[in-house]
Amino acid sequence: MKVDGRYTRTIWVEADGASVGTIDQTLLPHRYATIQLKTVQDAAHAIKSMQVRGAPLIGAVAAYGVALALRQAASDAALERAYALLFATRPTAINLKWALDEMMAGLRNRARKERVDAAYKRAQEIADEDVEINAAIGRNGLRLIEEIAARKKTHAPVNVLTHCNAGWLATVDWGTATSPIYQAHDKGIPIHVWVDETRPRNQGASLTAWELGQHGVAHTVIPDNTGGHLMQHGEVDIAIVGTDRVTAQGDVCNKIGTYLKALAARGSRACASCRMVRPSRTMDST
Amino acid sequence: MKVDGRYTRTIWVEADGASVGTIDQTLLPHRYATIQLKTVQDAAHAIKSMQVRGAPLIGAVAAYGVALALRQAASDAALERAYALLFATRPTAINLKWALDEMMAGLRNRARKERVDAAYKRAQEIADEDVEINAAIGRNGLRLIEEIAARKKTHAPVNVLTHCNAGWLATVDWGTATSPIYQAHDKGIPIHVWVDETRPRNQGASLTAWELGQHGVAHTVIPDNTGGHLMQHGEVDIAIVGTDRVTAQGDVCNKIGTYLKALAARGSRACASCRMVRPSRTMDST
Repeated sequence: MKVDGRYTRTIWVEADGASVGTIDQTLLPHRYATIQLKTVQDAAHAIKSMQVRGAPLIGAVAAYGVALALRQAASDAALERAYALLFATRPTAINLKWALDEMMAGLRNRARKERVDAAYKRAQEIADEDVEINAAIGRNGLRLIEEIAARKKTHAPVNVLTHCNAGWLATVDWGTATSPIYQAHDKGIPIHVWVDETRPRNQGASLTAWELGQHGVAHTVIPDNTGGHLMQHGEVDIAIVGTDRVTAQGDVCNKIGTYLKALAARGSRACASCRMVRPSRTMDST
Repeated sequence: MKVDGRYTRTIWVEADGASVGTIDQTLLPHRYATIQLKTVQDAAHAIKSMQVRGAPLIGAVAAYGVALALRQAASDAALERAYALLFATRPTAINLKWALDEMMAGLRNRARKERVDAAYKRAQEIADEDVEINAAIGRNGLRLIEEIAARKKTHAPVNVLTHCNAGWLATVDWGTATSPIYQAHDKGIPIHVWVDETRPRNQGASLTAWELGQHGVAHTVIPDNTGGHLMQHGEVDIAIVGTDRVTAQGDVCNKIGTYLKALAARGSRACASCRMVRPSRTMDST
């Protein structure tokens, strides 16, 4: 997505071919600054201090963290130390363990001299896979937005409500909940996003609003209390949120407050996708 | 209710028998300070600047404002100027117009020399009536809390959720939504209040939490996003909120975010009074 008019991912290998660049999200929205990760310790610190956050991005940072560790020492012991160090930063983040396991599986049985190149390659694949997954979420969601736009009077924007930051910043590119929004915007569909402030940590006001603004998407930050009122009055066409977990039965768990919005979407006759909402199967994470 | 251990109303005639004391609510919760209203201009300023807020309290301040005006000049013209000045402070506050009309009806046909005494007497009656109305709300609500307490295991507190400040500070005493809570607490029923922060103006975090704390009622401030999750998990026995308006059909209008909590109360099997909640007839004020 765009920052200051230039396309950017949230993670990249620097021109030196070794160190890894990312955005210090603790400074947003007041300041945009990038940081350079040169060691596995830098990568672990970035996750632990929440300079990077969002499960998919954490996974990618951890993968590159293993690559950085192997540059220092490519032994089995070094590989295991890197795994342990990175895993301890956020033990509950599912993508973190997944990415570390992927790296371990791909590197354990390789010769030491091949490990560094293989690690960067696999980390790059993990990042690219995330971009493709999110692009696919966007293509699926785009169809829902296009259906709504087709029913609208000319140039009336599609109003989307979102909660927290399931955005570009939480992933490598596109975001999850925001991917259909960005794809619709890039396709020229008029779109406007109601951005839940998302108390108590304000990820909506601080991160989602910032990234939508940088990409040029019209949006309004609202107190979390507002969404029900807007849905009752037909001001929300579709609510799109992230998900921390989905069970095999279809139960969804996401940021605290998601359940209240699911109830309101279900209760709103104006909501195009309310048939799909099952509040009784929506849980808030805390 | 109590402040620093002493029973206090939100409005009183000072020892000089003329000026009117109230609390500067703009300083709460960080500082408790009272202000002295000596003229009708002082009363108008207190309402306009939100030093006093809450419809019932605004009504009482306006009534005393008329009395203060008549001390300066007791003519018909002075009475009408006072009405116009006070009415313009918050033209949408229903209790303001009601109190001013009451004062006007009681004073217009009186001899000028009787007007000042009659005005203080009627203002005092309006304040006392508000206390009695709120005490009656409390007696009715107390029965619901007692029913819940009777079903609880020994000493388990009754968990009440409230939104915004429909508290003592918004009225002359007791509050509306908080009156059953204070009466239950004073009767020795263990009670704990989940206090919605109430974005965007934080009346819950700043005012309700302060007054509950001063009176010694156990409470926890929560982000507005939290109530649905708590209800889903049986952590809320009853939700009690204020109301800006009730229509003859029973439709209720209250602070933005009330509708979301009504949906969650309705959806929660744990909520003792969910039978009484009609989310489709609940509207948020903005």
